[in-house]
Amino acid sequence: MKKRIITISREYGSGGRLVGSLVAEKLGVAFYDKALVKHVADETGFHEKYIEQQGEYAPTKSLFGFAMTAKGSAGAMNGLSANDYLWITQSDVITQLAEKEPCVIVGRCADYILRDRDDVFNVFIHAPYTARAKRIREEYGDQTENAQALLEDKDKKRKVYYKHYTGREWGRFQNYDLALNTETIGLERCVDIICGIVK
Amino acid sequence: MKKRIITISREYGSGGRLVGSLVAEKLGVAFYDKALVKHVADETGFHEKYIEQQGEYAPTKSLFGFAMTAKGSAGAMNGLSANDYLWITQSDVITQLAEKEPCVIVGRCADYILRDRDDVFNVFIHAPYTARAKRIREEYGDQTENAQALLEDKDKKRKVYYKHYTGREWGRFQNYDLALNTETIGLERCVDIICGIVK
Repeated sequence: MKKRIITISREYGSGGRLVGSLVAEKLGVAFYDKALVKHVADETGFHEKYIEQQGEYAPTKSLFGFAMTAKGSAGAMNGLSANDYLWITQSDVITQLAEKEPCVIVGRCADYILRDRDDVFNVFIHAPYTARAKRIREEYGDQTENAQALLEDKDKKRKVYYKHYTGREWGRFQNYDLALNTETIGLERCVDIICGIVK
Repeated sequence: MKKRIITISREYGSGGRLVGSLVAEKLGVAFYDKALVKHVADETGFHEKYIEQQGEYAPTKSLFGFAMTAKGSAGAMNGLSANDYLWITQSDVITQLAEKEPCVIVGRCADYILRDRDDVFNVFIHAPYTARAKRIREEYGDQTENAQALLEDKDKKRKVYYKHYTGREWGRFQNYDLALNTETIGLERCVDIICGIVK
């Protein structure tokens, strides 16, 4: 079965998003990262910033203020918590996008949401702390003194979110067709490997 | 740093050993699987069959009978259990082989044993139960009725062994540079990907 959809799960700072965008460019297919957030914002009325933070990470603060901005107010959420409402909408959007066209989707548990399709190729991108710390300094201009603590916190929140909504362990190799360490393999070769497989 | 040594960790029945041997052939380097067992047998005096079983799997029966066949008897084992003695000898053999020549080493926690070298490339090979069950029937002629139970048991014993001797979780992607699902990627392409990276 030809693979039409590529999902990219990634550790924060591993370069996974960049790999995903380059794969999409090389294959000439749609790339859903920020564009996915925009779709979900249109559907829910939530702020894009909120979706970026809460659509992949375990929550860290009260969501009350955000919830009230949801489209159609609390009524549309049908008694669901803001996070559950966001999860459901996000899942619907991802399902529809996968149906519509070949694409690369970064994060947001897309590997799990699309698990019943047989045209999906699931990739996990990771790198050691040192390489990721260097990357977030250079690429994102992050000046955090304790980069490892920041990265551990990000990983942990993604892991908790993933576990909560999917019941699976985040980063367990069995859930992925391919897992790549960008430090030892190199970003460009990672792109070539993925494209070579799905082409 | 050029990668001289490739370690292959694998789920039972995933085709990992075959991938390893084809990679070694293609790169023209030594392949250590049975040959490694032979080296360890020469060093310890243990039966090759015993090393195959106990050098990667958590023990399932009394080892007393085997232990008594060890070279130089219990004296050479210096008060160690047969399994600990085997682990130490196996680690020494792997360390020496890696020092001696470029090679592919299958299993036996080589990824952990060689963790302080920077010329090692660690690969994990896996596949879903259905594909592995099919493979052990076709390749090994295994007629087990409940193949999934057999595979789960094998995985569990490797996992326990690995955890006991390395303190690490077996199959955690952070320990590997590359993880490949042979069912979705195909054995030949797996070989090409590994050779392409380390060449």
